[in-house]
Amino acid sequence: MRSGKDSYTIKFTTNFMPMLVVFALTGAFSVCSAQNDDDAFFIKEIYDYALTESDSYDYLEGLCAIAGPRLTGTQASYDGLTYCEGLFNNLAVDTTWRVYCDVPRWSRGDLSITMSVNGEPIKVRATALGNTEGTGGKPITGELVQVMHLDSLPYRDLDGKIAFFNRPMDPTQIVTYRAYGGAVDQRVFGASRSSKEGAIASIVRSIGSPIDTFPHTGVSQYEEDITTKTPGIAISTQDAEVVGAALNAGKTVTATINSTSHMLPDTTSYSIVAEIRGSEYPDEIILVGGHIDSWDLGQGAHDDGTGCMQSVQVLETLLGLGYQPKRTIRCVLFTNEENGLQGGKSYAKTSTDKGEYHLAAIESDGGGFTPRGFSCTAHPDVFIPMLKNLKAFEDVLNPYDLYIKNGGAGADINPLKPQKGLLIGLNVDSQRYFDLHHTSQDIIENVHPREFKLGGAAMTSLVYLIDQHGL
Amino acid sequence: MRSGKDSYTIKFTTNFMPMLVVFALTGAFSVCSAQNDDDAFFIKEIYDYALTESDSYDYLEGLCAIAGPRLTGTQASYDGLTYCEGLFNNLAVDTTWRVYCDVPRWSRGDLSITMSVNGEPIKVRATALGNTEGTGGKPITGELVQVMHLDSLPYRDLDGKIAFFNRPMDPTQIVTYRAYGGAVDQRVFGASRSSKEGAIASIVRSIGSPIDTFPHTGVSQYEEDITTKTPGIAISTQDAEVVGAALNAGKTVTATINSTSHMLPDTTSYSIVAEIRGSEYPDEIILVGGHIDSWDLGQGAHDDGTGCMQSVQVLETLLGLGYQPKRTIRCVLFTNEENGLQGGKSYAKTSTDKGEYHLAAIESDGGGFTPRGFSCTAHPDVFIPMLKNLKAFEDVLNPYDLYIKNGGAGADINPLKPQKGLLIGLNVDSQRYFDLHHTSQDIIENVHPREFKLGGAAMTSLVYLIDQHGL
Repeated sequence: MRSGKDSYTIKFTTNFMPMLVVFALTGAFSVCSAQNDDDAFFIKEIYDYALTESDSYDYLEGLCAIAGPRLTGTQASYDGLTYCEGLFNNLAVDTTWRVYCDVPRWSRGDLSITMSVNGEPIKVRATALGNTEGTGGKPITGELVQVMHLDSLPYRDLDGKIAFFNRPMDPTQIVTYRAYGGAVDQRVFGASRSSKEGAIASIVRSIGSPIDTFPHTGVSQYEEDITTKTPGIAISTQDAEVVGAALNAGKTVTATINSTSHMLPDTTSYSIVAEIRGSEYPDEIILVGGHIDSWDLGQGAHDDGTGCMQSVQVLETLLGLGYQPKRTIRCVLFTNEENGLQGGKSYAKTSTDKGEYHLAAIESDGGGFTPRGFSCTAHPDVFIPMLKNLKAFEDVLNPYDLYIKNGGAGADINPLKPQKGLLIGLNVDSQRYFDLHHTSQDIIENVHPREFKLGGAAMTSLVYLIDQHGL
Repeated sequence: MRSGKDSYTIKFTTNFMPMLVVFALTGAFSVCSAQNDDDAFFIKEIYDYALTESDSYDYLEGLCAIAGPRLTGTQASYDGLTYCEGLFNNLAVDTTWRVYCDVPRWSRGDLSITMSVNGEPIKVRATALGNTEGTGGKPITGELVQVMHLDSLPYRDLDGKIAFFNRPMDPTQIVTYRAYGGAVDQRVFGASRSSKEGAIASIVRSIGSPIDTFPHTGVSQYEEDITTKTPGIAISTQDAEVVGAALNAGKTVTATINSTSHMLPDTTSYSIVAEIRGSEYPDEIILVGGHIDSWDLGQGAHDDGTGCMQSVQVLETLLGLGYQPKRTIRCVLFTNEENGLQGGKSYAKTSTDKGEYHLAAIESDGGGFTPRGFSCTAHPDVFIPMLKNLKAFEDVLNPYDLYIKNGGAGADINPLKPQKGLLIGLNVDSQRYFDLHHTSQDIIENVHPREFKLGGAAMTSLVYLIDQHGL
């Protein structure tokens, strides 16, 4: 069942009458045709290619080995971009280009932290939060005050103290992204908001699912009205449990922090684009993408090496199968998602300035785990009919355990919303992601080849369906 | 929407008319009632309990630490049973008992194998296959002949040779269990069938997904008309690739095998059962279970420690939430699934002899990975209506990414089919299972706590729904 810009060709079978289905509720006139079989056959080819011929996992291994962690503005980030341009060239796409932008640049510097409970030293595993300023290489010492919610900050006496944000991710959220979304405000705004109340620094419980010893970094943001940019640090969840228990027991916890994190002047980076031009509707763009920058503790293997290489896999597969798209298929590897989003913003601006229209944009930025389907969002003017049309693809996607939901799509493609196309995120199994997200464990060894390639195959299949049938 | 033995109580809301839905196609009279919300609320409680209060992962850790690998008839297998009886007693279920049976007993003994290609030694990682006889402690040497299909055996000259079965699992199967099913005949019947053609031994490519160095054991079976029980050995997929390439290039590959594997006399073992008696329909049994025995290379953590402890989690959760079931809920930990299935057979026989009726039996034996839903099968007399009733539960299961399919249920519960209840298997993400299935890697460290407990929560939710509404 489909409805959309391209109506299905009605292929009459020997017994065609039961295949004619009228959707009274929507008023749309949809036809179940034999083309469903064509779709099923081609999607099977896509999956076979992914699981037997695709080199996408090798591409990811190369990215992790050659560039490694790709914090925006670092040499490694440019090495990663160069590596990916090489992949595009080898694939013999029609065109590749760069979209330049100014990007923030952050230096992690060095961090030392010592903590004690009632004067007894305790071990802590800590990492500086992205875009924060450190102590300028001079130690500061303060007593920790536990804060569970940003909203409760104005009621705490934080003058000269260190705010300790210790709200765990909600373990009862089945989809861990939701638990992340419910806890990450502490990391993003903890330093900023607590400094307004007189805190000299902030320490955040790592935004991670398990209780373990790996600190999770991630972006922190000083709001515009901040006068003092206080240090922001994350400690491992295990250490946070110890500190929280001590504070709950009325003990005194102090920390001495010495760090040299600081912002550097902005620099220039770029997103890279590769395109296969459409044969019938070249002005309708179907985008696939991920972000090429990453945090610096691991290799940015899952976040978002997998999304980038799955997007490359889409082109590799379509070209490998000799598929000529009707619409323009574009792969975009965005720069600077982690600590600025300048890649996504500049790409959307450039595109809109040129009068382009993205019929659909699919981002993979949830890790390279087994795909579960897609979630989508769009400008309210177009969302319901587009969602309905996407849902109609479930017939051929369900056999691959892929389901369509509404929900978020991706940070990099979100700025395309005013173009009124459908913004789609690859949904994957989320249980393991926040074990390693933004940690030293985000390395190639923790990316499972089949799970990763199945994600690329899912994206390729959806690109194919949208290309064939519109939205 | 439900239909079944228990009709829904119609709870009128202030605007009840639109809630009345008649299923013209089925003729069944189903009502969407507010009870859907009751179900949703209770299932949320089940998941919250699983993710915050359940000790099931600790139970699994205990099983792996205290008993370890639990090959049928070994002391460790009895230690495992004793440990689980302790869990049942601590949970304060209504009744526990044992179902005894005769079981085969196999001794792995020692294995040494050396191989060479054109006289040059190559490294091989090998393991004896379960229930096979070895060489009696005397070395045998032979040349390898590659065989890709059992069907092609009669056309090969195997006299005095070693049959080398080298057909990989089909990587294009999305669900890896299907690929396993398509390759495992080599392991089960390779020794038996090749011996009929004069082979002195058989070597099987490990039935595993990745190319790596871990040999996978598993059961092999000598058919009844076999006169010579030749040794059966598995080598790692990586070694199989090397050997296969050498043979394909026309090189001579020889192996010298010395092993002391052998069958011991049968002994007695038992499955254990724990029951919570139903208050309204005590004669309708809803079974949850897994198999307590395991292979001996790892710890039997996933296979099937997870299935056992998820089944215990079902009881733990229902008791922990103070739930009084209408029907009888029974947890069965079956003995001897891996190399005899005597636990499943004896349980079904005993049950049928007593005139019992299992309305539903749910087995978890696919690893403790993220649940994807349930597959089910039944006696043809009852299957379609029961499947339809199970499908009706999807409304409240879909939010947990659980879907109902038809398909296999579980080896241990299959003998219950003549009772004409619904046989259900927990479906889980299958991508990683055959990385570790029957290998040294099947250890607790490779079981993810959340993924595992979500499986138990899924089972508990389905037990609750069947208990409330019948099938």
